[in-house]
Amino acid sequence: MTNISFDELKIKLFNILVKHDFEIENAELCSKIFAENTLVGVASHGINRFSAFINLVKSGHIIPNAKPTLVNSFGAWEQWDGNLGPGPLNAWRITERVIELSKENGVGVAALKNTNHWMRPGAFGWEAAERGHILICWTNTIPIMPPWKAKTPAVGNNPITMAVPRSNGHVVLDMALSQYAYGKLSTFRREGKELPYPGGFDTEGKLSTNAAAIYDTQRSLPIGYWKGAGLAILFDLLAAILSGGKSTNDLGKTRVDSGMSQVFICFDPSKSYSAEAINNIADEIIESVKNAEPANKGASVSYPGERIIETRKKNLKDGIYIHPEIWEKIQRL
Amino acid sequence: MTNISFDELKIKLFNILVKHDFEIENAELCSKIFAENTLVGVASHGINRFSAFINLVKSGHIIPNAKPTLVNSFGAWEQWDGNLGPGPLNAWRITERVIELSKENGVGVAALKNTNHWMRPGAFGWEAAERGHILICWTNTIPIMPPWKAKTPAVGNNPITMAVPRSNGHVVLDMALSQYAYGKLSTFRREGKELPYPGGFDTEGKLSTNAAAIYDTQRSLPIGYWKGAGLAILFDLLAAILSGGKSTNDLGKTRVDSGMSQVFICFDPSKSYSAEAINNIADEIIESVKNAEPANKGASVSYPGERIIETRKKNLKDGIYIHPEIWEKIQRL
Repeated sequence: MTNISFDELKIKLFNILVKHDFEIENAELCSKIFAENTLVGVASHGINRFSAFINLVKSGHIIPNAKPTLVNSFGAWEQWDGNLGPGPLNAWRITERVIELSKENGVGVAALKNTNHWMRPGAFGWEAAERGHILICWTNTIPIMPPWKAKTPAVGNNPITMAVPRSNGHVVLDMALSQYAYGKLSTFRREGKELPYPGGFDTEGKLSTNAAAIYDTQRSLPIGYWKGAGLAILFDLLAAILSGGKSTNDLGKTRVDSGMSQVFICFDPSKSYSAEAINNIADEIIESVKNAEPANKGASVSYPGERIIETRKKNLKDGIYIHPEIWEKIQRL
Repeated sequence: MTNISFDELKIKLFNILVKHDFEIENAELCSKIFAENTLVGVASHGINRFSAFINLVKSGHIIPNAKPTLVNSFGAWEQWDGNLGPGPLNAWRITERVIELSKENGVGVAALKNTNHWMRPGAFGWEAAERGHILICWTNTIPIMPPWKAKTPAVGNNPITMAVPRSNGHVVLDMALSQYAYGKLSTFRREGKELPYPGGFDTEGKLSTNAAAIYDTQRSLPIGYWKGAGLAILFDLLAAILSGGKSTNDLGKTRVDSGMSQVFICFDPSKSYSAEAINNIADEIIESVKNAEPANKGASVSYPGERIIETRKKNLKDGIYIHPEIWEKIQRL
């Protein structure tokens, strides 16, 4: 197969979503998010996961046209119910809501319960930054990592995004608390490659760079060992308490990746600065990072989000490579 | 020397502070924080750092009786100037302020510029939790880690605390974004011990467990390699932009550990729940973590803050061990 264009991919996904009872507006936004995630090089949370997403629609875990509803408002902190709607759509709409809340109060927080996998959290960070806002958001997940000094999974890898607007390229960090996201491990396993750094433990309890071995034990490694495990516990506590929704432990009872809790924190920096002033602060920080001396001669030091911009530009021009097996699956949906 | 009691330590520090022009109220609170940090086992940000703290008072980098003043209010997000007052006192008072803000708005955020090293951020997390509130706070620091793929320092280790109240023991995470805080590395170096996991790079550019070698290169390792480096960049961007204060790069220009920016985010969970209901959620999460099967038979799995409670209890009973060299230094202040 040849590479396909962003528009072609988006239309393909749109048609499948409509076929599975998504209303036009929802199919439009949902296909845009999945296609964009793929466009920027995160196929693991784009096209590669689309079949699984449709399966959850079919099984009733994702309700195509459900929208978030307000449960409680405490001023600048609101609690929302995702009503088991599609994760990317719920998260997109809650991002829009916290942007409004931050315009009113400087900062706005929405905690969302009963939602579904949001795919790539960076998508919401980029959107908020594009609108000139700062966003921090994270989700809990089913238990997929052991706490420190344990061997059975009891904490999530609880991905987080932090986004800051900048006219020379938004700064957007998008990461899970495991050293490697399972999506990434899955890619390494499929391609039979070793991880560059240990990503978990093997059956003998040793740190391993073999993705398949880590899948076997389900002992993926938290970033910074005990530190990432600690962050995972706190992210889960905050998500469950602030939203009134399910904890990682609750989610583990069904083992279906559905019903999670999320937190969105948004700032409106225009309250304090002109866009130019924010840029100046951000530029100075990013330049100081990029000016650090590379460990290997000729290498370049990048900032969070930089490669996303490059990949997006390249894929818009050359089309998006999609693994043939994945593309074949999509045809059957 | 024998162990000394919490009260004896506090009075000793109080007298030194008064001798260095601290007003009674400020000396009272400041000595309490330093003594408490030592009591809970974090001497590296308690008694072991007290001489350096006094030196910064003497050199005029810390102004003993300066207090934070409000610069801007945008509703639930406020900007404060720390006026180069003592870091622990500024942070304590801003914690009290965000608690009030969260009572008004559900969530309250204060960003603080021109402050000084706050010592142990956990101190503020514990205090907020003790008052029934959820607190997230972090600071930027001078550049003490290289960004990923670089060998010269350009990012801070930007410690963060996240605290959730719980009647069976608050859950309080307190960590730097380096695999080991420099305070910890300093202890390992002094005691001539190897780190249990690599904590940075040696002069040959290899990952190392030797604290002295890491001091030589100043290449301490971010948690999760590129992930912790990314978090450090975002924490710095947020601290500088939200407060209007100095960035890590700015702080690096003087190389004095003074004038940093901090962010405090506080929630009032009583808006949504009874204290009992919060406890139930937190208990269920903590129990699920502690019930994970230990990797080594007979080992126990702990949650963030658990050992602090145990150490505190033990030291209140047995007295606090203070390294003789440190104690001798204190006598000369």
